Amino acid sequence: MSQELSVVGKRLPRWDAYSKATGAAKYTVDLKLLGMLMGKILMSPHPHARIVRIDASKAEKLPGVKAVITFEDVPKIIFNPNKLGLILLHPEGEVKDMYVLSDKARFVGDKIAAVAALDAAAAEGALKLIEVEYEVLPAVFDALEAMKPGAPKVHDFAEGNIGLHMQFPVSWGDVEKGFQEADCVVEETFRTARNHISQLEPCACVASFGNDGRLTIWSPSQHVFLHRRKIAELFGMPEGMIKWMTPHVGGAFGKYGSLSLEPVAVALARKTGKPVKIEFSREQDLVGTELRQRYISSAKVGVRKDGTLTALRENLIVDGGAYFSHNSSTTGVNMGSFVGLYRCPNVDAKADCVYTNLPVTGGVRGYGDSEATCVLEQTLDKAAKKLGIDPLELRLKNVKKAGEPAQTGLPLETCSMEAIIKVGAEKIGWKEKKARPREAGTKRRGIGMGMMMDVSGAQPFNIQIRNAFIKFNEDGSINLSISATDMGQNLHGTMAQMAAEVLGLNYKDVHVVTGDTDSTMFDTGQHASGGCYQLGHAVIMAAQEAKQQLLERAAKKLGADAGQLEVKNRTVYVASDPRKAIPIADVTREAMYNFEGELLNISGKGSFSPTLNPPPFAAAFADVEVDIETGEVKIAKIVYVFDCGKAINPTTVEGQLQGGIAQAIGYSLTEDYVVDGQTGVLQSDNFNTYKLPSALDMPEVEVVVYEDPAPSGPFGARGVGHGTMVAVTPAILNAIYDATGVLVTDAPATPERILAGLKKGG
Amino acid sequence: MSQELSVVGKRLPRWDAYSKATGAAKYTVDLKLLGMLMGKILMSPHPHARIVRIDASKAEKLPGVKAVITFEDVPKIIFNPNKLGLILLHPEGEVKDMYVLSDKARFVGDKIAAVAALDAAAAEGALKLIEVEYEVLPAVFDALEAMKPGAPKVHDFAEGNIGLHMQFPVSWGDVEKGFQEADCVVEETFRTARNHISQLEPCACVASFGNDGRLTIWSPSQHVFLHRRKIAELFGMPEGMIKWMTPHVGGAFGKYGSLSLEPVAVALARKTGKPVKIEFSREQDLVGTELRQRYISSAKVGVRKDGTLTALRENLIVDGGAYFSHNSSTTGVNMGSFVGLYRCPNVDAKADCVYTNLPVTGGVRGYGDSEATCVLEQTLDKAAKKLGIDPLELRLKNVKKAGEPAQTGLPLETCSMEAIIKVGAEKIGWKEKKARPREAGTKRRGIGMGMMMDVSGAQPFNIQIRNAFIKFNEDGSINLSISATDMGQNLHGTMAQMAAEVLGLNYKDVHVVTGDTDSTMFDTGQHASGGCYQLGHAVIMAAQEAKQQLLERAAKKLGADAGQLEVKNRTVYVASDPRKAIPIADVTREAMYNFEGELLNISGKGSFSPTLNPPPFAAAFADVEVDIETGEVKIAKIVYVFDCGKAINPTTVEGQLQGGIAQAIGYSLTEDYVVDGQTGVLQSDNFNTYKLPSALDMPEVEVVVYEDPAPSGPFGARGVGHGTMVAVTPAILNAIYDATGVLVTDAPATPERILAGLKKGG
Repeated sequence: MSQELSVVGKRLPRWDAYSKATGAAKYTVDLKLLGMLMGKILMSPHPHARIVRIDASKAEKLPGVKAVITFEDVPKIIFNPNKLGLILLHPEGEVKDMYVLSDKARFVGDKIAAVAALDAAAAEGALKLIEVEYEVLPAVFDALEAMKPGAPKVHDFAEGNIGLHMQFPVSWGDVEKGFQEADCVVEETFRTARNHISQLEPCACVASFGNDGRLTIWSPSQHVFLHRRKIAELFGMPEGMIKWMTPHVGGAFGKYGSLSLEPVAVALARKTGKPVKIEFSREQDLVGTELRQRYISSAKVGVRKDGTLTALRENLIVDGGAYFSHNSSTTGVNMGSFVGLYRCPNVDAKADCVYTNLPVTGGVRGYGDSEATCVLEQTLDKAAKKLGIDPLELRLKNVKKAGEPAQTGLPLETCSMEAIIKVGAEKIGWKEKKARPREAGTKRRGIGMGMMMDVSGAQPFNIQIRNAFIKFNEDGSINLSISATDMGQNLHGTMAQMAAEVLGLNYKDVHVVTGDTDSTMFDTGQHASGGCYQLGHAVIMAAQEAKQQLLERAAKKLGADAGQLEVKNRTVYVASDPRKAIPIADVTREAMYNFEGELLNISGKGSFSPTLNPPPFAAAFADVEVDIETGEVKIAKIVYVFDCGKAINPTTVEGQLQGGIAQAIGYSLTEDYVVDGQTGVLQSDNFNTYKLPSALDMPEVEVVVYEDPAPSGPFGARGVGHGTMVAVTPAILNAIYDATGVLVTDAPATPERILAGLKKGG
Repeated sequence: MSQELSVVGKRLPRWDAYSKATGAAKYTVDLKLLGMLMGKILMSPHPHARIVRIDASKAEKLPGVKAVITFEDVPKIIFNPNKLGLILLHPEGEVKDMYVLSDKARFVGDKIAAVAALDAAAAEGALKLIEVEYEVLPAVFDALEAMKPGAPKVHDFAEGNIGLHMQFPVSWGDVEKGFQEADCVVEETFRTARNHISQLEPCACVASFGNDGRLTIWSPSQHVFLHRRKIAELFGMPEGMIKWMTPHVGGAFGKYGSLSLEPVAVALARKTGKPVKIEFSREQDLVGTELRQRYISSAKVGVRKDGTLTALRENLIVDGGAYFSHNSSTTGVNMGSFVGLYRCPNVDAKADCVYTNLPVTGGVRGYGDSEATCVLEQTLDKAAKKLGIDPLELRLKNVKKAGEPAQTGLPLETCSMEAIIKVGAEKIGWKEKKARPREAGTKRRGIGMGMMMDVSGAQPFNIQIRNAFIKFNEDGSINLSISATDMGQNLHGTMAQMAAEVLGLNYKDVHVVTGDTDSTMFDTGQHASGGCYQLGHAVIMAAQEAKQQLLERAAKKLGADAGQLEVKNRTVYVASDPRKAIPIADVTREAMYNFEGELLNISGKGSFSPTLNPPPFAAAFADVEVDIETGEVKIAKIVYVFDCGKAINPTTVEGQLQGGIAQAIGYSLTEDYVVDGQTGVLQSDNFNTYKLPSALDMPEVEVVVYEDPAPSGPFGARGVGHGTMVAVTPAILNAIYDATGVLVTDAPATPERILAGLKKGG
């Protein structure tokens, strides 16, 4: 790969852009099967209630209704919908506490019963006819309250409602000694924001049993094989009897790291013997699928006069809602990010994962890193202010260098943190803006920054294996088979670029085959921003095996050794004399239709299990204006410098970064999960009350794709996904602090909270 | 494979039996796509006519009509719908003479125009509104007439309507000298029967372009990759831009060796931008898709007094109808079978492939072998009668032995012809029946036999490559990916048995993945009874590669060398101490979720190109009763001894043989393609006039599956498909000759023809 790159690094169009833009792309909800029933789920109206009795007889008699199922009909297996339990190196982190339909209502939205009927109207009607006698129990909506003696118990097994106590496993140094050595110690408690993934496609799923007993599930999973195994275990089926299909995915961002509707759809399909589709409305999606944990995060930092960190401590209380799901994993990431973002000799962290009678939390883009970083970065800015140091200088003092451990504990092959701070500071005009007049009437200008060290996969915490298969067509094009789902991040296009580069093909010569567990190889799936780094390697390996076969064939034709040959522009040529060349299509077609020698469908298989985890690094800068009369925040500009190692497709990386910035703006300022403190009912249950930033809310954004190649990365690439939002939130919140002196300890930074902070003397 | 077999050789149920029996199995005609149009084809009402003008304007204005296409709209590429041109070692055998829609009407049924509309009624209505001005030309309906000077010319390029003159390429000896050395020379001219495949599912096809420009075709092809390439060449597309899908297939028998509706559907889909389905009615299927050639076959045999053959000569005039399609291939097979079935020192054959204004002929089960064998075997019986030799003794005198060349020219690894004659003679009671009273009132009893040497593929005449891919699931089951279509012969089940045997699995542990050219490897497809022999090898090779990975993993667990291990009953065990064992599922699951070592999705790839072609051998015996007053033939019993080498699934082989016997009965007695000699209109255009034998017409049938393993065969297997009908026809016709003295020189042996023969003094 010493050659100049032909396809990798190019701004190529997304393979699915046209079909998505025209509406031709089909999603799960578009699927129609012969005889398919519509499923609907009865959700609990009470935040906490014992189910005394369910009478489904009236519902069952409604014309068109084919089945009503309750707790009595589902497997008596307690499970955790998060796939990670299957690949966790520390499986004790997986707490199982959920049934397919609940034995007891634990939040408003808990799944109590389900109906399958000939159409949605009949199913909807049947839900209203299911008579449930609830014994309403006291409920608890706050993690701190839930830990108090005498609080209502969400799960019988969880004393003090603590699902799991976690001690960060890689603490180092002596944190108390570190605080003693500090010239300045800052301690602050934050309540991080709860936000919802708000993917454009509400959850949907279809399940269907063939008359050979095989089950097909259509659902936009990020982990088709792991979810298949989860379903297999729940329903007592061998994995091979289940085929998991993924149609187009309307955004995932971590959501499809957990099972949601699938087990209910399968239970209904099993009972009726018919295909069953369940599709959530937006309201149901917001209340009934996983959202981000709220962390009550007590951060303590110790800093010397010169800005050097001496100690970091984080105590977390995790409000995970009614079921455990991802809580230990996101919390592990949170602790690792908090103590590992900067160089610090003494660190410590611990956490209690707490149950409340609130909707279930899970994995959301940023996945613990976002929550850790905004808390750490705000605390550091408070320390900088106390010490009178420029926050930028404080960070430069503590950034890590190549060779030091990353936040994962694995060594940093490279580290661009210092460099990207300098690039970003230049772009935003840090010095000039720090020096400018900051007040004008009721307006206050502020500037803030945030840093990030994210991941390219989940090593060394999970096992991960990625597989790819390539076969040539006659015309020199290839079919690239990968089970990995494209969640909208253009993973498939990115993989196509890598395969094309290795094989000397054009981008359009790669036809991606995906979405079917029967015809693609086992793969642990898409999470932790691992797609590009991990799967890229598998794709390159498959391409290299196929390339070797191609060159050996071509060598005979060209009268050269395979070792002397190279590929480019759909051509194999002698490296030392490029005039000696043959079109790749001539070689592949001849291999298939060879009338003189050995026949061959040129192909290759690649399998990759990562041992390293080169982080992407980012530095975000925000320039804001706060109206101290209204509390409103207006973001003037965001600069985001992101080291993705190598942008396989710069347009794709920029698009991801722009989307992540929008999510970070919502997470910082407007997106909030408002639950009525009396009834436990979600107030922000649609997009008129749950405020996503719109195009009109977007500030001037300058995205800088910084390329410091990861030595272990495919073409130097690192992960992107999570990191696109991580550093932006602290930059915005620190800019507000800079403008107003109000530290946003309760996010999002709504006008009300800013005004309250100002009143308290921010 | 020295072990006792666990799965191969067992009577296991067909994988698709339940879904086919219950109607759950989906065929092409069941496919519904969003926005799909229905296509209809306008067929010529004239057997021969110049198209002066077509006015589609009225048709196009009919509400619901989306497109009308004619010759003007289709590619100006002359093609041959038979796939074989792509893999023929002698490509001069492929005559190209067809357009997607015809430039001139050459038979009643020729495709003149096509319509796509919102529904079938609108499309049907539009056909009637297309105004075609024909200039009717003189037509010719008989090959001998067509060869005469001044006969109407079907194609301008074909002088004397001869599409191709063929000289059998491997004549040997001196045939004239051979006839001089003979004590008895018999010369006879036969007109073989034309029959139609009459598969239960009439032809159907769906074509759809994605908005990425890729074309998907659903059609039950036997050669998905070769047909894909044909379509690619016709429409100027790269092969990789086409995805060919095969739903369930309702019988093929050679029919899907040619393109039929696909090019028209693609042309309509291209013009409308919508998916288009075309489905033929039974009448359309009978007239508009390929049927068997009529051979006017002049056979000459020379025999010594003792029954030894001295010379064989065959002169063929092939009535191939209006287009060439398979004519050279079936005729090549015909000549090879005629001169190669028995040992004979002097042979010669030649053929003229002739055009007539009749429906198009193609590849039908038996594929030249059936036609050759019934002519040769009848001629031999006439010689036996002249010489006063028992026909059975005559055959025993001339059967080949191992080491001699097969009819293909390749050496016979083994030859069971003598043995199976003896088995069959015993079963039918040859001696007793020859000696019994043969006359009772108007009834005459007769007994006859026929022999066969067929093929296990098309080597050495075509290139052939078969590919298979296997991957394990966690549960120890496998996905076996093969592109080969199951045409109803249980190929997939047979392949599953082989894979299971090699891997020590149960039959149900094999999930076959098929029907999609994107996700299965290149393969030259299903023809010439090559499925079991050829693809079986590829499957075994894939399984062996996967087995090696499995054993290496298991070896570590069992503390043994991989070489010491064997597999059986889903278990890997130490051969010398079977108590040391581990379930296969434990190995495969551990390989995927290994928390300590290297991760692996155990898998294997197999690729096979045959160099040999072990024939299946068969001896058929028929006991008939002919009513000399009515001419009616009643078959009392058929014995069919068939050497398939090894029956991978005996029930499957027996089922194929029973089906083949039914087809042979129809071919011998009732199935005829009756065309009006004035108008060229097909008279036998539905199953009330085209007489297939029904269950009630079936005689007592005794099928003997004889197993003389082919040394080069997978588990010893040979081909089956074609051969199931080949030897039965001559046995029936010879029994009629034995009963009545009437040689059936004009098949089928209808009562009218038998009475005519009797009148002539048979």
